[in-house]
Amino acid sequence: MHALKVTRAEDFPEWYQTVVREADLAELSPTRGCMIIKPWGMGIWERFVAEMDGRIRATGHENYYFPMMIPLSFFAKEAEHVEGFAKEMAVVTHHRLKSIDGALKPDPDAELAEPLILRPTSETIIGDAFSRWIKSYRDLPLKLNQWANVVRWELRPRLFLRTTEFLWQEGHTAHADEADAMEETMLALEIYRTVVEDVMAIPVVCGEKPENERFPGADRTYSIEAMMQDGKALQAGTSHYLGTHFAEAQNIRYQDKDGGMSLCHTTSWGTSTRLIGGMIMTHGDDDGLRTPPAMAPRQVVIVPMLRNKPEDAELKAYCAALAAELNKAWAFGSPLRAHVDVKDARPADKRWDWVRRGAPLICEIGPRDAANGQVTFIKRNALREGEKIKSQPLARADFIAQAPGLLETTQAELFAEAKARTESNIRDGFATFADLERYYGTGDNENEFKGWARVHWSRPTGAALEEVGTRLKGLKLTIRNAPLKQPASFGPCIFTGAPAVEEILIARAY
Amino acid sequence: MHALKVTRAEDFPEWYQTVVREADLAELSPTRGCMIIKPWGMGIWERFVAEMDGRIRATGHENYYFPMMIPLSFFAKEAEHVEGFAKEMAVVTHHRLKSIDGALKPDPDAELAEPLILRPTSETIIGDAFSRWIKSYRDLPLKLNQWANVVRWELRPRLFLRTTEFLWQEGHTAHADEADAMEETMLALEIYRTVVEDVMAIPVVCGEKPENERFPGADRTYSIEAMMQDGKALQAGTSHYLGTHFAEAQNIRYQDKDGGMSLCHTTSWGTSTRLIGGMIMTHGDDDGLRTPPAMAPRQVVIVPMLRNKPEDAELKAYCAALAAELNKAWAFGSPLRAHVDVKDARPADKRWDWVRRGAPLICEIGPRDAANGQVTFIKRNALREGEKIKSQPLARADFIAQAPGLLETTQAELFAEAKARTESNIRDGFATFADLERYYGTGDNENEFKGWARVHWSRPTGAALEEVGTRLKGLKLTIRNAPLKQPASFGPCIFTGAPAVEEILIARAY
Repeated sequence: MHALKVTRAEDFPEWYQTVVREADLAELSPTRGCMIIKPWGMGIWERFVAEMDGRIRATGHENYYFPMMIPLSFFAKEAEHVEGFAKEMAVVTHHRLKSIDGALKPDPDAELAEPLILRPTSETIIGDAFSRWIKSYRDLPLKLNQWANVVRWELRPRLFLRTTEFLWQEGHTAHADEADAMEETMLALEIYRTVVEDVMAIPVVCGEKPENERFPGADRTYSIEAMMQDGKALQAGTSHYLGTHFAEAQNIRYQDKDGGMSLCHTTSWGTSTRLIGGMIMTHGDDDGLRTPPAMAPRQVVIVPMLRNKPEDAELKAYCAALAAELNKAWAFGSPLRAHVDVKDARPADKRWDWVRRGAPLICEIGPRDAANGQVTFIKRNALREGEKIKSQPLARADFIAQAPGLLETTQAELFAEAKARTESNIRDGFATFADLERYYGTGDNENEFKGWARVHWSRPTGAALEEVGTRLKGLKLTIRNAPLKQPASFGPCIFTGAPAVEEILIARAY
Repeated sequence: MHALKVTRAEDFPEWYQTVVREADLAELSPTRGCMIIKPWGMGIWERFVAEMDGRIRATGHENYYFPMMIPLSFFAKEAEHVEGFAKEMAVVTHHRLKSIDGALKPDPDAELAEPLILRPTSETIIGDAFSRWIKSYRDLPLKLNQWANVVRWELRPRLFLRTTEFLWQEGHTAHADEADAMEETMLALEIYRTVVEDVMAIPVVCGEKPENERFPGADRTYSIEAMMQDGKALQAGTSHYLGTHFAEAQNIRYQDKDGGMSLCHTTSWGTSTRLIGGMIMTHGDDDGLRTPPAMAPRQVVIVPMLRNKPEDAELKAYCAALAAELNKAWAFGSPLRAHVDVKDARPADKRWDWVRRGAPLICEIGPRDAANGQVTFIKRNALREGEKIKSQPLARADFIAQAPGLLETTQAELFAEAKARTESNIRDGFATFADLERYYGTGDNENEFKGWARVHWSRPTGAALEEVGTRLKGLKLTIRNAPLKQPASFGPCIFTGAPAVEEILIARAY
């Protein structure tokens, strides 16, 4: 018996939706394709923001805020860019409602001369500002970041993974030359790797996207890719070297030391609430989410076994004092986050709520614990011993002393578990495309666990790459990236038989 | 000579725009009516968010995130509410662009069956969630908060004060009865007063809005009102008791202890980036902004007098060590925020940049300071002595020891200065409307400093109140609020001559 009605093995997609709902992370809203993020989900996002924002600032970026509505004409300037996003743009066309025949309608007299687009990403409006702000080499590099909501119309929404509106961070920078811009592109990717691996405990592979998977308008796109528990890949963050495309389209130029005018080289990079989906599919189990302690809004949750009796007051005081002591301790370089759940509900229900949400340490404190000066707790990532819940007592002082260590151990265990799963499920030894076909089948078994394939290829471009894409699509596969760490030599290309030039990862993906 | 081209006395509105621009707070964007918030403005907003968010959480509210796009039909449910906002709503009507005759246009095949409104405020979509989430008295009170962008179409935008898109915080709560909801309404108002007075150093008057100035759909609206340096009022935050209006419109009911079904009583309350405008108009002077130290993203800015010579390295090291020492000190319950400005620009230009931005303490460190182990600094709120800039030397250790005190003194001085100005410019003694007319004139002198009037009235309602509003409008005046602190007895109503029941504040306003 598990805390969720459906297990990962039975139906992974349904299990995912169940965790999102039962862990009180988010729900679909009456606005089609959009979500309501609830306190536990929002708390996780706020932890992410704090960790990511600190690292982005520490590397010399400053936060700005740009308008969410962008004039349509701004998108027309970079053809490839607009083509990439035109099909999912929400368009504002009126600025007033009017009662017409008793019904509220967009007022025909308030139609905008130029429609406004809800930002799907902000290269265009930020590039426009760059062209005004950058005058000389002294203004470079210009490194900015924005935390914002974005809209990309989604016909098949999935909570956190694909929603019409989502929250994200987008970095945008301008540089004097390619070398400086490429250094920035890789710096951003490394920030992403650090936060996702060290804080979210999600192992990733850093690499470059093939030409056909690049961001619309980019010269090079790099990604971090994570393996979910169903063996599929999730793109967990991307960093783009945009070359001079946007600089040309938007006239972003600077005067160099010799007085000449040069085009800037720009970058952009983003991570979003999608990562919360990745965290669930990496660390969830059949009892709900196991939140990595560094990301948990509440790391130690104390449930007093209240009985609506006079003794309750004493028990509450014991729990409050315990939380206060714990909050003086530190874990992961921050004060520990302990919480007493005094909600008016059955203690057993509260315990299960916190199991499903994945609070890393859950203490159930009864009058006997209080009398004996002890703490009975569950370590969420080692919830069960066989069928039984593993609940262990410790003297109060020992629990307080050990809590930071228990949290840090949990964090390391979650990462090690995911890392081992990822590494053991990247398969080599595919010599030809037929091998790939035999292993993955036609894609009818799309939800069967298959893991990733690591293959050698000759890096075809243009039409030849298109064809590779089509053949892979037939197996419901995509190229994830060419890892930054490459072997010294290569076998033949599995697509063309020609000498290969790099190793790439292939997988089914979200 | 001042750092700005225009003084407050010469042209207050123009002075305001100049400060916003020269202090690098924000600028108008190419999207009409919207702004780009720049790092110093964003840093101030982030300080506000941190201070406000901490107090909102500490009083039992949790953060959520709701969709920015709200189905049009949601607004139709509460007639007064939609009437209040219909004229300023941005409407999304399409979800795709298409190239038509070579031009990108909203795709006619992708017109939404129901238009979506960009949230002007979120009572409707949050009320809908309340109606699903609240089942029993055990679910009450439900207290939530959201940090978000909102859109209210603005034909005459002014940076921070009135922009089509702005950032804000909106609290929404549901309660079992009026008493509990009113307690919440006043709690939110008190949180606002605390942050605005104690952190932003802006003195305010808390009070209740008259019937005709209530939030659309509210039973009672309370506000905090601040006096700007031109004597006008700025509504700096509002808190609304919504009664059961939204609960009726959206069916927000709970089962009480006896099993009966009752309507919830709801509240909402908000503060926004508008407050940054209020901070500028309260604390700015003819040299720029004087940022209250508790709000300053950088409290001590160190400008090394670099000369592109080998000695520069030593000077930089001296400054970096000074900043590191300062950052170990605490002020306002947080670690001090010191910064070394090593930008490639002339030291004098950098000094003036920080004067205009209003960094509370600005240190200019030359080789002689470094050699003598001293710090030469400017206290921004006491910038000048006569015409001269007041720059003072202190031994390094003394400056480090005194810096927190200097910051706290500055904060207190800014508040005291604004408090004295506010108090001495609220005028009593208006016995009749004619007195008011004589004092304020016809409104042709709208920008002349006049301050506020405190008058007695009989609290007329309906048509009688409308008439009062019209008469005041003729003088470009509005009723700000009826202060919570009221005298024991009242003279006659200045509008009707009838016995008065309360004292109200009247002013020109933003």
